[in-house]
Amino acid sequence: MREQMGQIRLHPDPDLSTDEHRERVTDGMFQIAQSGRPRTGFDPAHGGGGDVGGVVTAFQMLGYGDLSLLVKAGVQWGLFGGAVQELGTARHHDRYLRAIMDGDLPGCFAMTETGHGSDVQNLGTTATYDPATQEFVVHTPGPSARKDYIGNAARDGRMAVVFAQLITGGRSHGVHALLVPIRSGSGAALPGVTITDCGRKAGLNGVDNGRLAFDHVRVPREALLNRFADVAPDGTYSSSIENETRRFFTMLGTLVRGRISVAGGAGSAAQKALAIAVRYGETRRQFSDPATGEEVVVLDYLAHQRKLLPALATTYALHFAQEELVSAMHDVQAPGAASDEDAQRALETKAAGVKAVGTWHATATIQACREACGGAGYLAENLLPQLKADTDVFTTFEGDNTVLLQLVAKGLLSEYGARVKGLSPLGMARFVGDQVAGAVVERSGVQALVGQVRHRDLRDRAYQRRLLADREEHLLASLARRLRAALAPGADQFGIFNAAQNHLLRAARAHVDRVVFDAFAAAVERTGDAGVRALLAQVCDLHALSVIEAERAWFVEHGRFTAARSRAVTAAVNELCGALRPHARTLVDGFGIPEGWLACPLLGIEAPAPPAHALT
Amino acid sequence: MREQMGQIRLHPDPDLSTDEHRERVTDGMFQIAQSGRPRTGFDPAHGGGGDVGGVVTAFQMLGYGDLSLLVKAGVQWGLFGGAVQELGTARHHDRYLRAIMDGDLPGCFAMTETGHGSDVQNLGTTATYDPATQEFVVHTPGPSARKDYIGNAARDGRMAVVFAQLITGGRSHGVHALLVPIRSGSGAALPGVTITDCGRKAGLNGVDNGRLAFDHVRVPREALLNRFADVAPDGTYSSSIENETRRFFTMLGTLVRGRISVAGGAGSAAQKALAIAVRYGETRRQFSDPATGEEVVVLDYLAHQRKLLPALATTYALHFAQEELVSAMHDVQAPGAASDEDAQRALETKAAGVKAVGTWHATATIQACREACGGAGYLAENLLPQLKADTDVFTTFEGDNTVLLQLVAKGLLSEYGARVKGLSPLGMARFVGDQVAGAVVERSGVQALVGQVRHRDLRDRAYQRRLLADREEHLLASLARRLRAALAPGADQFGIFNAAQNHLLRAARAHVDRVVFDAFAAAVERTGDAGVRALLAQVCDLHALSVIEAERAWFVEHGRFTAARSRAVTAAVNELCGALRPHARTLVDGFGIPEGWLACPLLGIEAPAPPAHALT
Repeated sequence: MREQMGQIRLHPDPDLSTDEHRERVTDGMFQIAQSGRPRTGFDPAHGGGGDVGGVVTAFQMLGYGDLSLLVKAGVQWGLFGGAVQELGTARHHDRYLRAIMDGDLPGCFAMTETGHGSDVQNLGTTATYDPATQEFVVHTPGPSARKDYIGNAARDGRMAVVFAQLITGGRSHGVHALLVPIRSGSGAALPGVTITDCGRKAGLNGVDNGRLAFDHVRVPREALLNRFADVAPDGTYSSSIENETRRFFTMLGTLVRGRISVAGGAGSAAQKALAIAVRYGETRRQFSDPATGEEVVVLDYLAHQRKLLPALATTYALHFAQEELVSAMHDVQAPGAASDEDAQRALETKAAGVKAVGTWHATATIQACREACGGAGYLAENLLPQLKADTDVFTTFEGDNTVLLQLVAKGLLSEYGARVKGLSPLGMARFVGDQVAGAVVERSGVQALVGQVRHRDLRDRAYQRRLLADREEHLLASLARRLRAALAPGADQFGIFNAAQNHLLRAARAHVDRVVFDAFAAAVERTGDAGVRALLAQVCDLHALSVIEAERAWFVEHGRFTAARSRAVTAAVNELCGALRPHARTLVDGFGIPEGWLACPLLGIEAPAPPAHALT
Repeated sequence: MREQMGQIRLHPDPDLSTDEHRERVTDGMFQIAQSGRPRTGFDPAHGGGGDVGGVVTAFQMLGYGDLSLLVKAGVQWGLFGGAVQELGTARHHDRYLRAIMDGDLPGCFAMTETGHGSDVQNLGTTATYDPATQEFVVHTPGPSARKDYIGNAARDGRMAVVFAQLITGGRSHGVHALLVPIRSGSGAALPGVTITDCGRKAGLNGVDNGRLAFDHVRVPREALLNRFADVAPDGTYSSSIENETRRFFTMLGTLVRGRISVAGGAGSAAQKALAIAVRYGETRRQFSDPATGEEVVVLDYLAHQRKLLPALATTYALHFAQEELVSAMHDVQAPGAASDEDAQRALETKAAGVKAVGTWHATATIQACREACGGAGYLAENLLPQLKADTDVFTTFEGDNTVLLQLVAKGLLSEYGARVKGLSPLGMARFVGDQVAGAVVERSGVQALVGQVRHRDLRDRAYQRRLLADREEHLLASLARRLRAALAPGADQFGIFNAAQNHLLRAARAHVDRVVFDAFAAAVERTGDAGVRALLAQVCDLHALSVIEAERAWFVEHGRFTAARSRAVTAAVNELCGALRPHARTLVDGFGIPEGWLACPLLGIEAPAPPAHALT
């Protein structure tokens, strides 16, 4: 992928108009298609490479370049193609997959509506079966049911996977997906389809987001993506999953790849921003050292280190968490893999958590990098503005981060609830401890650390883990206790849930913090080279202690820290910043971003001449 | 100003090219000039209105519209015009002020260089006096001395106030300002002046930022802005201020208005973002209440309240702090006001602190508002993207925020040092307490609160103040103790300073937190209407407690809070969010942003028809 990326113009001219940028990104996408690479992730039975993890990792690399191209590719092959593959059956695969992989059938993923973004179970669009003609009638009942923010819709898409309430025989069966043609070969909207343009956005202006409304548009019965449910010619509904909600979430669950891909793209963008800011911080000098009279390199200032180095450490942590996530996805979604509902659910929870934490981290980190580069960081030529503008929406698309953390908490609570039945409160508390400390650790390879807290050195990995796991356990157990009140007859369920919402979000966050830490700790453990391992261990310390520092109020409030120990965490973070300062350049070089992709005046790197066979 | 603003096209078409946007903003600026309003802030002796506070308040209103126009106007009348007025004398005023006020002489403020942004005392540009011709030779000795990011330079500026090391008789006297013509009437760069374009930026693309380099450009001796220092025809240097550093900072100090204006503009932008997000949050529904089946308005969710309401409370607090600041500036800088060095210094410290905290707050708040509006918040039509992109640079221009907080700390330390000489450590600690609790409070009108901490109700204003003042005192006193080590002979000054930098920034921040709180508390105290006062008091509580919540680790670490009390702060913030929820709309309406300026599809407000005599 790196090799191929060198042939793509990575940074859009910042003064491109929306139309020009879209044109360029569409070109780039078709040229990626021609390379055959998008086939990597599809089912080998239909000409794909079957390498689910590989395609997400490759996709992630696009995050170093024009993020519009990343999102456009994500819409075409991840969302649209992924939905056809995962929700459809042979009749769809045979007919469409090849054209989708090759970019000959540009498509949309039409789920979100103006009125429903997070709560997609309550979409307004309807698909009503008409047995007389054996067709579905796809309809937008009002303005709030209009499909909105749909990538590939405003300009290029010819077909859409439309999510709609499926109605047959006068009864609704919940949200299902159908393939609906929206544009003719000439590019005109088809009869009954109204397409409008979302216009300019904060970023990602190479992606043509638009709105779709349907006025009784008829599609054949076979347009239903029928892997999990089908409608017989006479209108009889059938599904392998009886419960409507469960069915819907099973369908959604297969689409987890999009969320994982966004987390990966955010990681690449954060890495690139850090590479720019750290390298600039190593050359920029400001104010003199009174002793020598020499101007000080800004990265030598503690305040500057504090802006960049903990963020750098957490970027490493998230990289390892992402690796685990992609690897788990690869196993669960491999073509022909046996269905494992528990593994699938765990994957979804982890994906939701890592996506939320990772995209928020990217937003904050890119902002810090921009500020660390001062006025130069505000100039488009220095790449940070585009990174910032493009990644901003990552925190709210492919699942709003706040809603995703609630999903995480819900997943944790239901797992918890399933296991604690019949336990006494004491046993329950102990159980949560065991469960978190045991089951989850097992996979991450850090089980050797558990139970070995001999002393309380802040740099002791087992102690760090104990702190993070303890916080997670406590927040989850207390949340469960608190929410139990909602089960009482006549309880004000909304009131109880809402009062605990802040608590719930913290519990989810604490869980993700621990999961991300475990991924980093496991990576340190498995590193063979002693020098690399020692350096990574320090980076892991900085990550862990900066997370603990940010949450140190909790540790004191809950008796885990004395006041003195809490202050010591801040001192340790400062110390680690100083210790890692000499390695900052090594650490950003470790991301392996090819030099040409960082070309900007700020770093004094000239843009490489575009190769003769440049893609765009 | 509001009336006039209604005649300006407030929101630039988001798809404007850089050239088109610049054109439009230049037009807007000339039309503001024609209104005569920019005269408001200038000296009546030269046709001005002498209303220093009025012009900054009016300027702030531009922050509701196109921030490019705000910055362009700020460059012309605030920075360029302000420098001519404050650093020049009658010979400059008579010749240029009228043309500046009327927009006939567009100008630049050429201070920042590529190599020196924060440390402007070490600029590289030179102005060497040549007695033979009675001219200064302005020269850029190398690429890092190039003037950079200069507003009005790339397209419109005809003259620049150039900051350069003044050299006469072979000796440098430090940085001084000179008027240097840069463009002819036809718009061409003058001989010896190289002008380049900074190009596209993250935002503010209606402002033509550029770079200036001078190749031995000669200007007459009278071009020196000579209020504080002059060069005689024979090259003899004279100044009313002997110490070079003090002279330089006196010159800089007169320019404090720019910093105050940026704080005001940031405040307006944050208000507008909140008005959009709160109003949207009151109409947007998502997920159903299990009891009623009705979809819940998102602002009813605690998590959503937490995103917006503490930010709203702090926006009120900063509004009152800004009012105090503008009022103090109005008194200190009024034409003919007696020079008061202490008042001037206090103004500079306060301006630095409020600017840093206010612009960071705006960046974070606009980001939170964008996220709170989901995908809709990412669309340019809904105004938030432009607000976000434009205000981003506020945190690093007109003084980098981190450097400004260091300035605040330095101001506090020198005041502290001046007064504690000869005091025992105990007396010293007590002194700081007195000083902070006494002197500073006096002006803010909350002295009635001090010493009345009867109980420890978190909603007790005196208790809140005690907490904030106590933190400020402790951080400052411990900082002073820590830095005293640097005075020892042979001490590693840089090392000691650098290790304490985080501490120093916290001390500065704690000071600003207390100053902002005092401004809000005083505003509550002076509010006559009982209903308004009761509501404002709750908003002040939320502001104070959310600041204390964010810093609660410190309060526990330093024995000010028990663990239980610390947790109670979080509970109180949650409770206040609920209590203020019904008033959220009232509170954003309180900003008085005219409806037409909030026109966007998200709020369902149509853009008003442009008036027949629209300015742009």
